[in-house]
Amino acid sequence: MKEEGLYFFELFTGNLVKGIKVDKLYYQGRTKYQFIQIFHNQFLGKVLFLDNKIQSAQIDEYIYHESLVHPALFTHPSPKEVLVIGGGEGATLREVLRHDLVLKVTMVDIDEELVKLCQKYLPEWSDGAFSDQRTSLVFEDARLFVKETEKKFDVIISDLTEPIKEGPSVYLFTKEFFDKIFQALKEDGLFVLQAGSTDPFYHDFYISCAKTLEKVFPLVRPYWSFIFSFGLPWGFILASKKEDPLRLDDEDITQRAHKRKVKKLKFYHPPLHKSFFALPLYLVNNLKKGKVLTDKEHYIWKL
Amino acid sequence: MKEEGLYFFELFTGNLVKGIKVDKLYYQGRTKYQFIQIFHNQFLGKVLFLDNKIQSAQIDEYIYHESLVHPALFTHPSPKEVLVIGGGEGATLREVLRHDLVLKVTMVDIDEELVKLCQKYLPEWSDGAFSDQRTSLVFEDARLFVKETEKKFDVIISDLTEPIKEGPSVYLFTKEFFDKIFQALKEDGLFVLQAGSTDPFYHDFYISCAKTLEKVFPLVRPYWSFIFSFGLPWGFILASKKEDPLRLDDEDITQRAHKRKVKKLKFYHPPLHKSFFALPLYLVNNLKKGKVLTDKEHYIWKL
Amino acid sequence: MKEEGLYFFELFTGNLVKGIKVDKLYYQGRTKYQFIQIFHNQFLGKVLFLDNKIQSAQIDEYIYHESLVHPALFTHPSPKEVLVIGGGEGATLREVLRHDLVLKVTMVDIDEELVKLCQKYLPEWSDGAFSDQRTSLVFEDARLFVKETEKKFDVIISDLTEPIKEGPSVYLFTKEFFDKIFQALKEDGLFVLQAGSTDPFYHDFYISCAKTLEKVFPLVRPYWSFIFSFGLPWGFILASKKEDPLRLDDEDITQRAHKRKVKKLKFYHPPLHKSFFALPLYLVNNLKKGKVLTDKEHYIWKL
Amino acid sequence: MKEEGLYFFELFTGNLVKGIKVDKLYYQGRTKYQFIQIFHNQFLGKVLFLDNKIQSAQIDEYIYHESLVHPALFTHPSPKEVLVIGGGEGATLREVLRHDLVLKVTMVDIDEELVKLCQKYLPEWSDGAFSDQRTSLVFEDARLFVKETEKKFDVIISDLTEPIKEGPSVYLFTKEFFDKIFQALKEDGLFVLQAGSTDPFYHDFYISCAKTLEKVFPLVRPYWSFIFSFGLPWGFILASKKEDPLRLDDEDITQRAHKRKVKKLKFYHPPLHKSFFALPLYLVNNLKKGKVLTDKEHYIWKL
Repeated sequence: MKEEGLYFFELFTGNLVKGIKVDKLYYQGRTKYQFIQIFHNQFLGKVLFLDNKIQSAQIDEYIYHESLVHPALFTHPSPKEVLVIGGGEGATLREVLRHDLVLKVTMVDIDEELVKLCQKYLPEWSDGAFSDQRTSLVFEDARLFVKETEKKFDVIISDLTEPIKEGPSVYLFTKEFFDKIFQALKEDGLFVLQAGSTDPFYHDFYISCAKTLEKVFPLVRPYWSFIFSFGLPWGFILASKKEDPLRLDDEDITQRAHKRKVKKLKFYHPPLHKSFFALPLYLVNNLKKGKVLTDKEHYIWKL
Repeated sequence: MKEEGLYFFELFTGNLVKGIKVDKLYYQGRTKYQFIQIFHNQFLGKVLFLDNKIQSAQIDEYIYHESLVHPALFTHPSPKEVLVIGGGEGATLREVLRHDLVLKVTMVDIDEELVKLCQKYLPEWSDGAFSDQRTSLVFEDARLFVKETEKKFDVIISDLTEPIKEGPSVYLFTKEFFDKIFQALKEDGLFVLQAGSTDPFYHDFYISCAKTLEKVFPLVRPYWSFIFSFGLPWGFILASKKEDPLRLDDEDITQRAHKRKVKKLKFYHPPLHKSFFALPLYLVNNLKKGKVLTDKEHYIWKL
Repeated sequence: MKEEGLYFFELFTGNLVKGIKVDKLYYQGRTKYQFIQIFHNQFLGKVLFLDNKIQSAQIDEYIYHESLVHPALFTHPSPKEVLVIGGGEGATLREVLRHDLVLKVTMVDIDEELVKLCQKYLPEWSDGAFSDQRTSLVFEDARLFVKETEKKFDVIISDLTEPIKEGPSVYLFTKEFFDKIFQALKEDGLFVLQAGSTDPFYHDFYISCAKTLEKVFPLVRPYWSFIFSFGLPWGFILASKKEDPLRLDDEDITQRAHKRKVKKLKFYHPPLHKSFFALPLYLVNNLKKGKVLTDKEHYIWKL
Repeated sequence: MKEEGLYFFELFTGNLVKGIKVDKLYYQGRTKYQFIQIFHNQFLGKVLFLDNKIQSAQIDEYIYHESLVHPALFTHPSPKEVLVIGGGEGATLREVLRHDLVLKVTMVDIDEELVKLCQKYLPEWSDGAFSDQRTSLVFEDARLFVKETEKKFDVIISDLTEPIKEGPSVYLFTKEFFDKIFQALKEDGLFVLQAGSTDPFYHDFYISCAKTLEKVFPLVRPYWSFIFSFGLPWGFILASKKEDPLRLDDEDITQRAHKRKVKKLKFYHPPLHKSFFALPLYLVNNLKKGKVLTDKEHYIWKL
């Protein structure tokens, strides 16, 4: 070590750690819901940590957010009303708004302080999305919002933190909540969520989310991507009432992208669409072993 | 930090480091060609480092080796004579030998000491492959071997370290060498190599390997996988005289696997085959920017 | 490592590092003269780093400051006019003011921003000293101040950072400057300075300071203490025109302390006074090897 | 961090850690009694760790061992029979043997494997002491040995690890054991022991050892030194039946050293002798607060 100064140490497990040099610490503090750290690293750019877990890095946040948003949005033939749960930095919003036929996006995040901090320190993430006319911002528990809303959505996107002990996301990965999501979707509606690591060892949360969604939706399509700044392959799951992402071919996507004037993508493009859904054998074999998560038997992140 | 003792620090760049707890150090020493470290980590299992760069971890070496070997071997309709360059731990050999119609595999590694150490400390990698009747082991500079061999191979697999300064692999990633490889292949022969990281930032080595192969082979198919223990998406390139991996469908692969009695795979399976070749947009856009590598203008790993 | 989050890494050499957990970062920024970092560690309390070198920790700053100030102040029979060079956090000032017969302390620090930051974030160090009637604060290059002052002082205390490249202290450890110091002292005046590590390996700065002072002062008394938060034995040097610290016995110090109403000491007490000056044999043997430091042949900290 | 590879992390507390680059690991393994690690660091030289706590580094082991041995040996007017408890690397033995009037040193260490490993990997510590005619080596529990020996010693030196949970030293720092030590000493005998850190925070073990010895010996003289490679001021205690170390002046020591042909010291010399016993005020004030350690109420190291 010839370089000195501040490092952020992130633990994967107690015996596998990552040290990230901190050039500048923008913010360190606790909101009502979580512990927030925002800093700059020469290689990763700006980085956001919630409860000491990395959420997003400037260098590749587009990989995460394009992987989360576009498979669902392109699969839906006409996504006009979209709901985003979580997604505090505004990049999920940004990607949704790229589809110009979207008329309204409602974003529900429990942590107003976090959103304000992201607007202040991480404006590159939302890139203007918060001031888009089509955006509606609600600071509320998503569980309450989804239960009480009378609207029906075309697409619902869950962009939440992992369910750590006493964290704000514990009851947003349960069958009870997914039932409400189902009810809040139109009859051809789609739900997509980020669902944790799909690495060869720690993927039990992922497979349990998939299993739980299968109890609720007729069609469940797990897929994966790779997030460099996490150092991990990352799991997403698309749950659908009717539309199947695998029925789209490259030409369909190209046409939809053109019609909807989707621009500036850096990761997602038609050839990637189907390949997302090709899971590795170890994961395919283990998918059956997932447990159904409920309010009573919910998941707590163990790492 | 509540745990104390030995850690291995691997640097991605000076400001991004990984700390791996060392439960047991099996070996640390310098061979004629490189600096070798073999240790055990509770999570990764046994790990091999060459010149302070991770090569393989027990937890997921199968992902790397299945990604390297099977796309090429399944694409070839009848791979009987195979050449492996590098691949000191013997796991590439092991994967090749799973195809029972392979009659002979020649493995050429410059570093006999390394191979002996792997046989002693990492027998799980080769899993008996070194004593298979079909295996022939040659300790020699691969450049010399390929130049002088009079045999023609069906498939040649390059499983080398990155070309670090004064390392043994510098001149094994150049047009001059790829020309020799081309000559050593039968008329429907295939060449595949591991070609470094495909992360969103440091992929110039990868795109230059692809560009260089395009000067030599009529068909070049770059593909990628994700190696968890590297924390990186990883690039491979298949260069072919005739056969195209994209012409195989799932059914073809399933039949070939059955006919060749390929067993015990944990990562590769038919649905993954085509998806390997769907590169992310940032990489597709940059592929054109690669430089042709030659003996004179060769590549030196900068990290 | 089971604890995650921010750590500050301080390098002793490239192969010996210290990691200090950062509970709270109070300040990180560059003044006109140096890079300042102030944070809290659960064990050390508040800590001040200048140019990535530790200056003071709340847990034991009293050891450093009592070691620096009291040997000189007790040795002088009647210290009325005192000059402090550097000492931005105000703790040297605080210790000087404990001697109630001190009428005036002038503190000259080049870095006004640093002093303001210390007043804001580290008030425990000065503990009211900045608002003491006897204190006079001057923001100026000490070299200029000492050259131009027409006053004569009883005691001058140098509490500076080590002379790192392009740092503000490089020319404050040279014969030329010590000559000016000599001239600014009354005929029974004393000069004391902190002079770096006295560890068994890196003490060349210390022995060179001693050698240089011997060219200027008739009596030079090197002494040492141990600063826990530095993890190092630390060197000081008392240079005197007339008074000898070794001529004081415990009784003298006890009487002077009583007469001057010195209170609240936690480290220095009479039995320690003489023992400070008993250097270890390795240091005694090497003292002769110091080089005379001049403006031309000045010292640059190598670590 | 620009340097990569193996580091040893030593924890002072969970939030204060030290990273020591490992150039070469000589040995890592568990004996019947403790976990041993021996490696080389470019700056510290060879280093010995027992149960993940540093015991000795080549760069300054002489400071520790001279501080432990010579105050007692010079204080005794004629040390002929010496007993060393612990001291596995043989350096305490080495220092005792420098006094040529010593006729016999018995060293009792419970861990034969450790002693063999030190002889193999750390011969610089003993420097021939193990093959000195006057040395007698016994592998036995010191508690048993002292209880059963019929010999009386002039000086007994305790050079043990701290009493960590289930470690071999727990019952060698209790009143019951010190009583046996007292009985095994001649009527003018001296006992000296290393007694842990004297840093401003964690010195409760030290003050409790002192308090306990006061219940057994008529004269107890605590003293301290500074061990650079520990990064800590370090406590020792001399307990005496008759002789007082403070009655020796420089001249006495010089004469004794000459008469006994003591050579090659690098740390201890006459002026240091008395200064060892000048403790800092915080320690003097806390000495009264020590608890009497007994077999029942023994001390377990908390860090």
